[in-house]
Parts: sequence; structure tokens; C-alpha cells
Amino acid sequence: MFFQSFEVLLIRGLFVGRFQPFHNGHLEAINYILKKTDELIIVVGSSQLSHEKSNPFTAGERVTMIRLALNDIGIDSGRYFIIPVPDVTVHSTWFSELRSYVPDFEIVYSNEPLTRLLVKEAGFKVSSIPLFTRKLFKATEIRSRILSGENWSNLVPRSVANFIEKSGCAQRIIDMSSRDFADDQY
Amino acid sequence: MFFQSFEVLLIRGLFVGRFQPFHNGHLEAINYILKKTDELIIVVGSSQLSHEKSNPFTAGERVTMIRLALNDIGIDSGRYFIIPVPDVTVHSTWFSELRSYVPDFEIVYSNEPLTRLLVKEAGFKVSSIPLFTRKLFKATEIRSRILSGENWSNLVPRSVANFIEKSGCAQRIIDMSSRDFADDQY
Amino acid sequence: MFFQSFEVLLIRGLFVGRFQPFHNGHLEAINYILKKTDELIIVVGSSQLSHEKSNPFTAGERVTMIRLALNDIGIDSGRYFIIPVPDVTVHSTWFSELRSYVPDFEIVYSNEPLTRLLVKEAGFKVSSIPLFTRKLFKATEIRSRILSGENWSNLVPRSVANFIEKSGCAQRIIDMSSRDFADDQY
Amino acid sequence: MFFQSFEVLLIRGLFVGRFQPFHNGHLEAINYILKKTDELIIVVGSSQLSHEKSNPFTAGERVTMIRLALNDIGIDSGRYFIIPVPDVTVHSTWFSELRSYVPDFEIVYSNEPLTRLLVKEAGFKVSSIPLFTRKLFKATEIRSRILSGENWSNLVPRSVANFIEKSGCAQRIIDMSSRDFADDQY
Amino acid sequence: MFFQSFEVLLIRGLFVGRFQPFHNGHLEAINYILKKTDELIIVVGSSQLSHEKSNPFTAGERVTMIRLALNDIGIDSGRYFIIPVPDVTVHSTWFSELRSYVPDFEIVYSNEPLTRLLVKEAGFKVSSIPLFTRKLFKATEIRSRILSGENWSNLVPRSVANFIEKSGCAQRIIDMSSRDFADDQY
Amino acid sequence: MFFQSFEVLLIRGLFVGRFQPFHNGHLEAINYILKKTDELIIVVGSSQLSHEKSNPFTAGERVTMIRLALNDIGIDSGRYFIIPVPDVTVHSTWFSELRSYVPDFEIVYSNEPLTRLLVKEAGFKVSSIPLFTRKLFKATEIRSRILSGENWSNLVPRSVANFIEKSGCAQRIIDMSSRDFADDQY
Repeated sequence: MFFQSFEVLLIRGLFVGRFQPFHNGHLEAINYILKKTDELIIVVGSSQLSHEKSNPFTAGERVTMIRLALNDIGIDSGRYFIIPVPDVTVHSTWFSELRSYVPDFEIVYSNEPLTRLLVKEAGFKVSSIPLFTRKLFKATEIRSRILSGENWSNLVPRSVANFIEKSGCAQRIIDMSSRDFADDQY
Repeated sequence: MFFQSFEVLLIRGLFVGRFQPFHNGHLEAINYILKKTDELIIVVGSSQLSHEKSNPFTAGERVTMIRLALNDIGIDSGRYFIIPVPDVTVHSTWFSELRSYVPDFEIVYSNEPLTRLLVKEAGFKVSSIPLFTRKLFKATEIRSRILSGENWSNLVPRSVANFIEKSGCAQRIIDMSSRDFADDQY
Repeated sequence: MFFQSFEVLLIRGLFVGRFQPFHNGHLEAINYILKKTDELIIVVGSSQLSHEKSNPFTAGERVTMIRLALNDIGIDSGRYFIIPVPDVTVHSTWFSELRSYVPDFEIVYSNEPLTRLLVKEAGFKVSSIPLFTRKLFKATEIRSRILSGENWSNLVPRSVANFIEKSGCAQRIIDMSSRDFADDQY
Repeated sequence: MFFQSFEVLLIRGLFVGRFQPFHNGHLEAINYILKKTDELIIVVGSSQLSHEKSNPFTAGERVTMIRLALNDIGIDSGRYFIIPVPDVTVHSTWFSELRSYVPDFEIVYSNEPLTRLLVKEAGFKVSSIPLFTRKLFKATEIRSRILSGENWSNLVPRSVANFIEKSGCAQRIIDMSSRDFADDQY
Repeated sequence: MFFQSFEVLLIRGLFVGRFQPFHNGHLEAINYILKKTDELIIVVGSSQLSHEKSNPFTAGERVTMIRLALNDIGIDSGRYFIIPVPDVTVHSTWFSELRSYVPDFEIVYSNEPLTRLLVKEAGFKVSSIPLFTRKLFKATEIRSRILSGENWSNLVPRSVANFIEKSGCAQRIIDMSSRDFADDQY
Repeated sequence: MFFQSFEVLLIRGLFVGRFQPFHNGHLEAINYILKKTDELIIVVGSSQLSHEKSNPFTAGERVTMIRLALNDIGIDSGRYFIIPVPDVTVHSTWFSELRSYVPDFEIVYSNEPLTRLLVKEAGFKVSSIPLFTRKLFKATEIRSRILSGENWSNLVPRSVANFIEKSGCAQRIIDMSSRDFADDQY
């Protein structure tokens, strides 16, 4: 729990994702959590990764997408924090490291088994998130469609689709997979 | 430069500090920069450091102080990002690492010679910040006063003073310097 | 060779394992080596790993299991050391790093090709360990049985089975693999 | 708390030192703690450091000294663990990392302010150690005497003095400070 | 661009490879680039890796092979630099790190999509290399032949083949894959 | 010793320096060693450091200075290697790491006590270098003169002085120490 000067108790939740990219499923999850809590910490996990097949976007690009998407639907930016957190090699210290990077919180929202386990082993409360239109709202599916040229823009918020196109990130995903060159010769 | 959907050009600035703790000088600097730019990225530098004499606060505590202070004076949280960034051992890659953690920006505000040098060597624009009532608004001075029991709360925003007291951080600074025990025997 | 104060020459061996978990095959190997040497250094390798599918146990839990198992069969704790050693990214410096973590030794016992190669390239003596009832005494087999609910406790020393159950480690292995939640959505 | 199969509650303490080198003050502290607890975990801190002025000994050499000293006075090696633990750059995760390297324990014995603070912030019990003949029993004093050729062997257990001489560690301390060569020219 | 005292403009190219091992395809590529540029920086990438299946050779062994091969065909050693560069975990800072390790250069020669992308994102010029007798001149093929005992020496320069044999590296590749021992039991 | 294809025994020496910057004393040392050996490996130590007061130059800039200086006096580039090697946190593995980065060698030339100690502990041969006009030929002296505007160019080879001026490195040393700004306020 944290205190503001007028001493009203507020509840802060924490939500961890890699957001490669941020999509409509993430948006629904955040909307759901913001109904249950006063404030939300959105952790951009594996923040050190980018420019690889499963993690094409930098942390900064992921922060940008989240802000754009939440602005789109009018969520007050005073209700959330967006914090990039790098991975640690030692799994058992991940939650301790995470806590040092973010404001205090009372509850973690996650469906990921290892995250849930580490949070519980540290004596913290963890809650799951209802599943929405699961099949489509997966980052893997979106990256795969960008690569193959299929339509993907309806799977992410409008401003995120716009950002992915204009920032050159869509092109990056295609460039990274290029097989025009004999990359295995040298 | 970045684009919102209605395609108006906005200028984003970047300001780096360690904020150990956040004080009135930081607040004046941010107010100054927000008059020159549309949005501001506030980088919480040396984010991996805490619990040491010159760096007592965790990144999460520093993020909390900044949000509280900017809320205090009614700055719209939609105009800024607060992003913790760890140090890197290789100075020459620091700016490249920094860029991967934050949204795009056009100009860096800093008075620190090494920061200015690294930004300029990367071909980016850097601007200095006018000095305000310098002597008092220094983090070193505030940490020293907390330790010696002198009055320090007027040097930081009201909500920050409140946070430092209630969160136990003031006590931590005192505990860390304790000489009640023979710490050099074992 | 090392000298005790009464200046008798003793031979110390070194045995490296990950012990995920410690099982009857490890116990037979240690018994074998202790017949050939005066003292034994038991290195708990990959000490930084835990909470992952192939490495569920922390270094501390592995140290605990080894001590319990050797106590069970009455091996004098004065005859061995148990030392956790983290991996290094540079394979060619692993043996040098290992040597800095442990007391002096004369011979390494290992059947693992890379370990044997690195030891030999450093000019040290390496010896292999006879194979005991191989098929059953494999850590992979034990972790797989814990997960599927098959009987596994007869493959490890009695006190180790007891520890794995009571410490919650068996439950951790199950929790980590949980597919009750849509871990791939977020 | 931990359980052995016959379910007697035992208390395990933890004692952290750098042991550069292990001296009579350490020995008195360990004797004191072993009167208060059933078992003791002796953590060899900053295990990655060696070959520097304040940290001349490797972790392995420090483990060796501790075992020799405790053997000297007949402490049953079944009552303690000696575990090297490397430093972490992030202070706030140090205690979490430490816990992953060692068996479970109930209480930490330390007079060092930062150690005490980090243990308490994690919700663990910490106790101080009475001071013995303080002035002499300091590692700094011993290293300084080795360097200047003064008598130092009465400040450490007999077998430790013997080890420091015969292993070449005393000579290393002298060699490392050699000013026969113009080390600042190249 | 760089200047020598007589102020003639020279063009320096940069070529990145892992050279596990250096083969005739690498040699042809270097010959090709040296026709287009005045000087060449040969970066030995992933310099920290060795003693693993896909990366058996140390950086030092790879530097040795390159020098031997270029000497063989009489390329003036004044026209090139051989610089080992370790990988970084953060892809987006790799090019920045690389630049700090090597002399200035104007153009990068690479067919590898990620290398090409990172170079272009940094605003540098990248050029591709024509493919030579592709199928045979692949490091994977050579390592596989060494392991299986097939003829491989005609795929690498004569002095490189000689080095791989006499230095014991061929034997290392075989030793590392040894399955004479039950490496999965312990 | 290493063999060239015509099987003549050659002696290779190794010389470690930080070269911040490369000066006439380094040049005399290299000339001295090249009279005693057939080939020389010049290790650019602490290669990861740059942009700090005692280490202003990047590894790449130091490699460039060395090549320029040796070209100046007509030393055949076929007789030496210039290899940047990063520091490691574990002193006791430094020499092992070093060996993995460079071609084989028989003897290390160094006057630095720790380097000499680590080389000797690894069982290698180490030799000292005669002192030349010591007082002037120190990197500290040169950096200090660049900063204060005193004459320094006669302390380094002519082409090195030229490079330091034209590359902007002299200006960097001055910029890094700038006190025009209140760098301690923010």
C-alpha cells in the first residue's frame, strides 16, 4: 500500500508483458486490471532484447506503443506507470530485482506459470487475467503475419498499427528474416 | 521527431538525472524544459544502484518521488515518461543503450560534461539548463542533512519529503551509516 | 597434494555435477571416489540456475540434498567440501574460474567430454567414473516422474526424497509446468 | 527452520565475512554463534575477488583456511557449511541472491550496517556479535604486517599461519606490492 | 575517412565473421574486398566463444588462422587489422560497441541480414559480397567433416589445415563430441 | 614456440599496455622486445574503457595509434599483432582469458607487479623491460598536459600526435573535464 498526502488507501497492481508488439489482448487485460485497482504498473519485460526474431522491438518502441494505445482509449496517464525491466540470469532473484525498479504494489496480475511461482514464493499476492479472444491476440501471430504480408493491423490498436508502419518496425521484421543473402557462408 | 495520428510535429526532450533524491532544483529544471518542448523523457540514471551512501534510493523509489512531485504542481502526466536506465560498463555505448530504452526524442538537456560529450559524439543535439538556487538544491546536501538531523524537507517538494519520511527511506540513510557496530572486524 | 599440520600427504579429488536433483547414481559415484582419495570437493555446477525446467533447484537446495544424503550413509563431513560454482560465458576460462573457488586438488573425476577436455587442456589429471545402474539414476528421469506423478522416491536417497517433498520443491516442478493458464497470450 | 527425518527443530545461523584472511576474531565469532545455534552457514563473501590489495586470497584459499582453523579446535564439520558467494552489482538483490546459494537459515549474525539493513528489509532476523580483542584481530592489520615483515602469525590460528606461509600466499601479498619495477610507465 | 600525414584519402572496409574455422570462402571474400578498399578491418566476432560444438576455436586460434592464410597468398599485413570483438547481450548496441573496438571505417561488407540491418539503422553504408563456390566453403561443413573423418583440408588454405592438425584443434572437435562416457548420468 | 609452414622455430613475445595514449616509452619498449623475439603480440588492455579521465581513448583509437607509430619507424606489420582484450572482474582468471584472445606465445614482457604475478602463477615466463627516459614518457603526464594546454606532442610519435589532434581526441579530453556547467546540481 502507498499513501498520498491525504492518506487515502489506494491499490496498485502490476502487470508484466514483453509486448512484442502491444496488441488488443494486452489492452483488454489492462482495462480489466484498471477496474480492479487504482493504479497499474506496466512492466516491459526483457527490456534488453530487440532486433531478434521473437523480440524485434526495443524497450523504447514498446513504451511508445503502450502510451499510444492507452491514449487512444482515453485512459488517464496518471493511473499507470510504464517501466522497462531487464531480465536477470538468476531466476530466483528476478522478483527482487523487479521490485527495486518499480513503485510499491500490492498485487501481480499474470497467467504465466513461472511469474506466478516466483511471485508466490516471495510471499506476494498473484491474480490471473480472464482470457479474451485468445487465438488472434497473440504477439507471435502478429509478427508472423507482418512477415508473410497478411493483414495484421486489426489485431492491434489503431495508433500502434500506425506506429509499427511509420517507424519502420514492420520493415525491420522483414529485413531481419531476409534470405536474399547467403548468411551462412561467412 | 514522432508523429501522432493527426500528424502534428511535436518536440520531445530528454533529461537524465540520478534523483538521489528528487529535489526542487530538479523540479525547476523540468518546468523549464517543459516550456521548451511538448513532451519530456525523464531518465532515472544508474537505476541499478541503491542502498549505498551516494545512492540510497532504489529506482522504484525515485520513480515514485518524481511522479508525486509532478502531480503536486499539476503537470499533466501525459506530457512525460519516467524511464529507469541502468549504467553500462562501456561508456562509449551508453547513449546507444539509452536510446534503446526510451521513445524517440530530438534534444537532450544536460549540464554534465560526459553526458554532453557522448550525446554530441553521437550527432544529437544537447542543450544546457539555467542554474537555479544552486547551493541548496543539491542531492548531496540533502542526504548529508538527513544523516546529521538538520532540516532538509524544504529543499524537496512537499510530497517527496512526506514519502522519504513515511517510506522509511530517511531511516535507511541513517541505518546505512551506523557506526554502533564494529563493521571492520569481520 | 595438500598437507595437514602433521605433514602427511593426502590426495584430494574433485567431482562436478549439477545435482538437479542429487540421486543414487551421484551417491555411488561419491562413494567410489572416496575410496580412491582422502578428501573430495563436490562442485555444485551451474549454481546460478534454478526455477527452470531442467534446473528447478537452487544451489542452496542442492547443497542441502548432498549433505543430507552423505549424512544418511555416515560419510564423515570432514572428508568433503560442497562448493557452488556459477557458469562462466567463456568456456576456455571455466577451469581457471573453478580453481579459484575451491581448495587445491590433484585429480578431477568426470565422464562429461567437455569437462574432461578443459581439465586436460589445463594440464590436470582427469579420471572417469564406472557406470552404475545407469538407466534409472538420471536426473532427467526423476524430474520427469515428479511431473507425471510416477514413483520416483526410490531413485534418490531417503532423506533427499523427504526434502524434495517437504520443502515444496516437488510442487515447484509441477507449478512451473502448469498449463492451466494461457501463458502465451501476454 | 529445516526438518530432519526425525523431526527435531534445529536452528541454523548464517555468518558473512570476506576472511582476507581468516583470523582469531573470526574464530571467536564462530565459536560464539555455534553456542547459540545448532548449525552455521559460513558465507565467504566477495568470492570473485582475489589478487588485489584488500583481497589477496581466492575463495578457495579462504575456504581452506576456515576448514583448517575449525579442525584445529575440534569443531565437528557436520555443524557448518562453508559457501562462497559472489557480489552482485545490485545491492537490493544481494540478500535474495545469497538465499539462493545457501541452505535455509533462521537468523543472520552480522555487525556490518548494510548487511543488517538488507537482512531486516527482507523481513529476516539479524543479531550482532560481541566484540572481542578488537584492535588486533582485523584483516587489514594482518595484511599490513605481512607486507611490512612484522610478526602476524599470532593473530591467526596456527594452521592458518602455516597455510599462508606454505601456500605462497604471504609471498603473493609482497609480490603484488612490488615497486621494483616502473609499473606506471607502460 | 582517415588521414595519413600526407593527407591522401583512403577507404577502409570492415568484414565480420566468426571464422570457425577460416576457410577458402572467407579468403575469396577478403580478396574481393581488398580490391574495393585500401585497408580492411577483419572482425573476429563472438570472440568470447570457444570449446562448443558450433564454436570450437578460441579467438586467438582464429586470429592465427587468418594471419597464416593471408600470409600464404602474400597479402601485405599492413593492409588489414584483425580484431576480436565479443558479443553483447543487447543487439541494438552491438554496432556501437563494435565501433569502439576498431579503427574508423567507411563501409561494412556483410551478407548477414541482422548485421546489415544494424549497420543501416546506425546510418552506415553496407555492401554485399558475391557468392563463391558456396556449398563447400561453409564452416559447418568443415566441422562436420573433421568430426566424421572425411577429407576437409582442401576446403581451407593449406597453412590453416596444417595449423588445425598440429595445434590439436582437430582432436578437440573430436574430443568434445565423445560419447564414450555416460555424460548424462552425472 | 610456433611453427611456420617451413618448420622454423620462432619465438613470440607478449606485451600488455593500456596505451592511453601510445607514447615514445611504449615505442622504445616494443623496439626492445622485437630485438629479443621474432614476433610480438601487443595487447590493448582494458579495451572496454574509454571516455573517462584516466582512459579517454577507445580501443579502436588505441589500435590506430599503435599501427601509425610502428609504420612511422618502418616496423614490418607482419611481425606483430594488435589485440584488444577487455578486463575481467575475476583477477585470477585474467591470464586464462587473455590466452584465449591471442595467438600462442612463449614469454610475457611486463614491469607491472600484478601482471608479473598472474603470469608466473600460471607457470609462464615473464621478463622485465629496461626503463627509458622514464619521467616524461608516462601516459598520465601526457593527458595532464593536453588538459592544461602545455606542449605534449614531443612525448609521442609524430603520427600519434597528429591523430590525437585531428581525430578530436585532444578536444574530448578537454570537454570531459569541463567545469563550465554545474554538473553536480542534477
